[in-house]
Amino acid sequence: MAGNTFGKFFKITTFGESHGPALGVVIDGCPAGLPLSVEDIRPYMERRRPGQNARTTARKEADEVEILSGVFEGKTTGTPIAMIVRNTDQHSKDYSELAHVFRPGHADYGFYQKYGFRDYRGGGRSSGRETLARVAGGAVAQKVLSELGITVDAEVTEIAGIDVTTEAGREAAEEKVLEVKEEQDSVGGVVTCFVNNMPTGIGEPVFDKLDARLSQAVMSIGAVKAVEIGDGVKASKSRGSEDNDGFEAVLLPDEEPDSAEDDEDPYQDGGYEAFEVTSNHAGGILGGMSDGAEIVIRAYFKPTPSIAKPQKTANENGDNITLSIKGRHDPTVVERANVVVECMVAITILDALLENMGARMDYLKEIYPNE
Amino acid sequence: MAGNTFGKFFKITTFGESHGPALGVVIDGCPAGLPLSVEDIRPYMERRRPGQNARTTARKEADEVEILSGVFEGKTTGTPIAMIVRNTDQHSKDYSELAHVFRPGHADYGFYQKYGFRDYRGGGRSSGRETLARVAGGAVAQKVLSELGITVDAEVTEIAGIDVTTEAGREAAEEKVLEVKEEQDSVGGVVTCFVNNMPTGIGEPVFDKLDARLSQAVMSIGAVKAVEIGDGVKASKSRGSEDNDGFEAVLLPDEEPDSAEDDEDPYQDGGYEAFEVTSNHAGGILGGMSDGAEIVIRAYFKPTPSIAKPQKTANENGDNITLSIKGRHDPTVVERANVVVECMVAITILDALLENMGARMDYLKEIYPNE
Amino acid sequence: MAGNTFGKFFKITTFGESHGPALGVVIDGCPAGLPLSVEDIRPYMERRRPGQNARTTARKEADEVEILSGVFEGKTTGTPIAMIVRNTDQHSKDYSELAHVFRPGHADYGFYQKYGFRDYRGGGRSSGRETLARVAGGAVAQKVLSELGITVDAEVTEIAGIDVTTEAGREAAEEKVLEVKEEQDSVGGVVTCFVNNMPTGIGEPVFDKLDARLSQAVMSIGAVKAVEIGDGVKASKSRGSEDNDGFEAVLLPDEEPDSAEDDEDPYQDGGYEAFEVTSNHAGGILGGMSDGAEIVIRAYFKPTPSIAKPQKTANENGDNITLSIKGRHDPTVVERANVVVECMVAITILDALLENMGARMDYLKEIYPNE
Amino acid sequence: MAGNTFGKFFKITTFGESHGPALGVVIDGCPAGLPLSVEDIRPYMERRRPGQNARTTARKEADEVEILSGVFEGKTTGTPIAMIVRNTDQHSKDYSELAHVFRPGHADYGFYQKYGFRDYRGGGRSSGRETLARVAGGAVAQKVLSELGITVDAEVTEIAGIDVTTEAGREAAEEKVLEVKEEQDSVGGVVTCFVNNMPTGIGEPVFDKLDARLSQAVMSIGAVKAVEIGDGVKASKSRGSEDNDGFEAVLLPDEEPDSAEDDEDPYQDGGYEAFEVTSNHAGGILGGMSDGAEIVIRAYFKPTPSIAKPQKTANENGDNITLSIKGRHDPTVVERANVVVECMVAITILDALLENMGARMDYLKEIYPNE
Repeated sequence: MAGNTFGKFFKITTFGESHGPALGVVIDGCPAGLPLSVEDIRPYMERRRPGQNARTTARKEADEVEILSGVFEGKTTGTPIAMIVRNTDQHSKDYSELAHVFRPGHADYGFYQKYGFRDYRGGGRSSGRETLARVAGGAVAQKVLSELGITVDAEVTEIAGIDVTTEAGREAAEEKVLEVKEEQDSVGGVVTCFVNNMPTGIGEPVFDKLDARLSQAVMSIGAVKAVEIGDGVKASKSRGSEDNDGFEAVLLPDEEPDSAEDDEDPYQDGGYEAFEVTSNHAGGILGGMSDGAEIVIRAYFKPTPSIAKPQKTANENGDNITLSIKGRHDPTVVERANVVVECMVAITILDALLENMGARMDYLKEIYPNE
Repeated sequence: MAGNTFGKFFKITTFGESHGPALGVVIDGCPAGLPLSVEDIRPYMERRRPGQNARTTARKEADEVEILSGVFEGKTTGTPIAMIVRNTDQHSKDYSELAHVFRPGHADYGFYQKYGFRDYRGGGRSSGRETLARVAGGAVAQKVLSELGITVDAEVTEIAGIDVTTEAGREAAEEKVLEVKEEQDSVGGVVTCFVNNMPTGIGEPVFDKLDARLSQAVMSIGAVKAVEIGDGVKASKSRGSEDNDGFEAVLLPDEEPDSAEDDEDPYQDGGYEAFEVTSNHAGGILGGMSDGAEIVIRAYFKPTPSIAKPQKTANENGDNITLSIKGRHDPTVVERANVVVECMVAITILDALLENMGARMDYLKEIYPNE
Repeated sequence: MAGNTFGKFFKITTFGESHGPALGVVIDGCPAGLPLSVEDIRPYMERRRPGQNARTTARKEADEVEILSGVFEGKTTGTPIAMIVRNTDQHSKDYSELAHVFRPGHADYGFYQKYGFRDYRGGGRSSGRETLARVAGGAVAQKVLSELGITVDAEVTEIAGIDVTTEAGREAAEEKVLEVKEEQDSVGGVVTCFVNNMPTGIGEPVFDKLDARLSQAVMSIGAVKAVEIGDGVKASKSRGSEDNDGFEAVLLPDEEPDSAEDDEDPYQDGGYEAFEVTSNHAGGILGGMSDGAEIVIRAYFKPTPSIAKPQKTANENGDNITLSIKGRHDPTVVERANVVVECMVAITILDALLENMGARMDYLKEIYPNE
Repeated sequence: MAGNTFGKFFKITTFGESHGPALGVVIDGCPAGLPLSVEDIRPYMERRRPGQNARTTARKEADEVEILSGVFEGKTTGTPIAMIVRNTDQHSKDYSELAHVFRPGHADYGFYQKYGFRDYRGGGRSSGRETLARVAGGAVAQKVLSELGITVDAEVTEIAGIDVTTEAGREAAEEKVLEVKEEQDSVGGVVTCFVNNMPTGIGEPVFDKLDARLSQAVMSIGAVKAVEIGDGVKASKSRGSEDNDGFEAVLLPDEEPDSAEDDEDPYQDGGYEAFEVTSNHAGGILGGMSDGAEIVIRAYFKPTPSIAKPQKTANENGDNITLSIKGRHDPTVVERANVVVECMVAITILDALLENMGARMDYLKEIYPNE
């Protein structure tokens, strides 16, 4: 029962259906003293808005976030932060046509079997709109991480099997998407997320490995069908001697040079040692813990399941029918899902950082000095 | 803060280092009344034993499981089931050589950074032996599932990039592995797990999607770097019209035919309708819930990181060194990790089934009839 | 971090400050198919409204609940049920006087120490208004329980040390409260809660004993300082031979009499055996599990800490001051806290019932028949 | 299902029946770097041993704890600490007489109803021996707390209704207990637990109030029927003006006097302000958070339910019988339960301290400085 809460320490609980009164999120466990306002959330919401280009849907959605609690005089207070987004067009449509149909590639049949009936209005709880709440929560996590100097960035790296990290790739993909759209069909894609300036040793060594929790976080986004860390699938085809990331002791400059001479040769005696991996096949995570390298996680999205092209399926009455799903649907979800991946990763990273705070006796003594 | 418990309803908590006194598992939430003895656990333990063929290590490990609690007169009592396996050769070796080295591709550096020091004996908590406890827990989950008619089976499907589901493939892979072993190197591989006879609608629609939890379960196994559900990566390159699984209403024969005539034409009036997907690109899970098709999950393992081939790395003192890891290490982990994947999947499936028991008012009324 | 979620299966997450935009609750884990509307919530909200009699405050609060999600066509869908109550008078007051004062008997100092600063408007998260969200959640739990035939009822049994279960007692207490109000002081009281028609064996035998979880539930209500189950404190002063509740095998009439004759002597051969306790010192819970008797739990409330009578205390600046708290405060909280106790007990009882659904293999087989 | 884990951050999972092979505990979340050996556990185990005086049973139990994991070179490693105690006399007795009887005041009937059958050997999971595992876990929590300068001490304050905090009281109680023992009966008592040098602001303001969690912790100990914080029941009978604890700003001496002059008048300009409550009716907890005063919690135990005095009850066959429970049973449990209360309180306090570590942005920045 349940499963609408993610995180163990920075916990988001989301709610809402695509055509109910509102969607929202309650964040429990956000540290007190973080400057926060709706302005911090809005840019993230904008990134998942439809209608940004020819490849995404043209719908207009306001999606104004309202903060209901947990912020006072511009700062988080330590109490739960609740945010809601009203559904403005909730009564505008007739859903009777899809009410009792099991759309191919959708959750309809699952809901019907699980609960005995379902909220059939526009995808209900499994609508893409559900991710609004994740993004609102993730925006807060991003704000906390930014205060710690940690960055989380996701980008679309592949559309319809085409690498879009180059200009040529982007053009080819754009053409392909328009062509597919014309055919009333859809395509999938890949989002890659990068975490930088991550402290080391974060993540718990067994079931709550950092990569394991990132996998749940990312796979829980609708339409994701595979998750990779670092080299991922490729690692399974390589050799140990190629895949292993070795460590190197490096001499870092002293933070506070004692004198001007020090500046000339920072490594001489003011330097201290640190360790770096000399390659990054592991994607920044070894044994479930961050190793100081850039964390790289890849999410593979299936094509948008809602297509106008006629498909065979069945309805609740047991009739086998042919279905053509009308409406403005993105021919690919990745461009809007991008920010969702980023937000889920940010939440997971922050959660792991909080979990790690009790890992050592010296941390406890730092926070609770015995005076 | 932890992370040594997996599952929310059928919960396993594991403990133990490879060279401490013992490893073990506590299962909390196993339903009462399940026939259970050490005989149910042993076959699973055997499957992860080394020394089974030329490709796995020749070490002898007894790995006898002892049940400490939760079973009475051959049946589970509903109280926690604790099981331990003693480490018999815990003092037999000198680990001083590896004590302060950061082995490439291992968790050593992570532990050192996380806790400030580490149990350096043979991998400690990140040793492959840790999976013993998962397997003991998974064997119990398998027993419960078998009573419900649900099967979970994992098999090695790829080694060193070679498809081993055919006899030719297996031979080619065996040759390749021996060659790699000769070179003191290692290779990766793929394990695929199948779940059959699964009830529909199992899994929670948002963060605790069945595939999301399976991803955490499988990615939490050491050396796994990618997880796929159904078509996985391939789905990201296909079209909606290809990838979508349609539903079909099918007429099943009546369970209890009223008369002999019925038998001749079972579908006539005694039949009832059911739904089946007409393809299975989704791997048995749509919208995070089981759709009745076979669940297919794939785990991609990196090559065994412990290799004798010399590698460059560093030690805690800040020395950059060249390391050759001695000892009997499997040139590939997949053949022994196979059963671990199966066990983690079984635990996750059972956990989701238990979670789903409170999903509907009619289930509550069935268990708690108001008389 | 956190602590704003209660329950493990029927989970309520609450949010909101007394003078922020809104308070609310998200219920995750409510079974699907429960008829539910705002009409089911309203009577519970009414019971905690102020201004009901001379002994409670005269403030007017609308406290209209809005359901934001999880209900479709009059029934719960299995997805999270979010409900909010707007704070209508949030900007109406000047709190500067109390902004930096540590009110005696309040949470002010704790918040200040915990988070470094606090939302000082009217008690913030520790205001009595916080219980609104608990009551909204509890009303839903009550609805589920009523469908299972289980009743949970709380009543005020003592005010200012006077037993108010008799008419004479109520009159004496009313007089006492008015007298105390006159003196700008306040009094405490006791709420007793009764659960009837409870299935047996509910509650988990060790840490999650039914009485242990009820204790947390009730002690988490502001101003409660002691919790008793059954005879409670008195049991500690009695003897085993007096306190032990024995069992008796009783013959119940057959449910479906075979014939008219059966009705004349229902016990004859159609009867079946059941067990009943012959006394109820334990308050319906033995070894942490329900024993079939009426569950009795008592909550002891301290006097309302906000009093106009001058008190010595300090402020954040380190000034020792004399404080007189103005405003309309109830001279005793029990009359409005009554429904809060009932709601917290209902949530706990339902949670335990859901947890128990996976306790036995035969329950699993009932819900998941292997056909 | 479940309920054998306590704590959210410092988590203990216990297992074992009184007459199975062993009892034990797995601690997950113990900070790394704590010096720990069996010697730290033993004194706590000794305190709950029987046979310490005339009032407790004469049984001999070795109860030697073995640490199976999580400790390396005398320090905790951050991984789970598993400890077991073997049951040495597990096969020594014939339990057939009690096998199908519902002992008055025991969990027998609950187990029978919950699971359909039960491990009837000596109380099974509900035996007093279950607390061995709590004590082993609590001893570790005590060690952590002692490193932070926090003390947790429990003592028996009442036996058979007699205050035993005075010498006269102790003598009267001893006499009473011997008298009751003679009559084959038993008595209850009270254990009071004190926490000192507690940091302020610990505990979460809503459902996880420090007192709420302490209540669950203490009420989960077998035979506890009431829990009080501070004045407890008495507070419900007093007035706000009496019960409220005011704050006082006090000037503390400067920690590092700048000069010798400072020493002569430590308060002059080197002093800093702190706050103290001027009374402690609240028992050190206000609004669910510690207020700096001594935390006082009281546990009321019912009389030992196992008595030789004949009692009426029933058995599983539906026979109404008269039962006399043979064997060596303590006439009162409080003297051995004392350390159990202390241990459960210590675990709860430590858990709350760990939870609080993520409460503030400045704590995060302290642990994760952005360099």
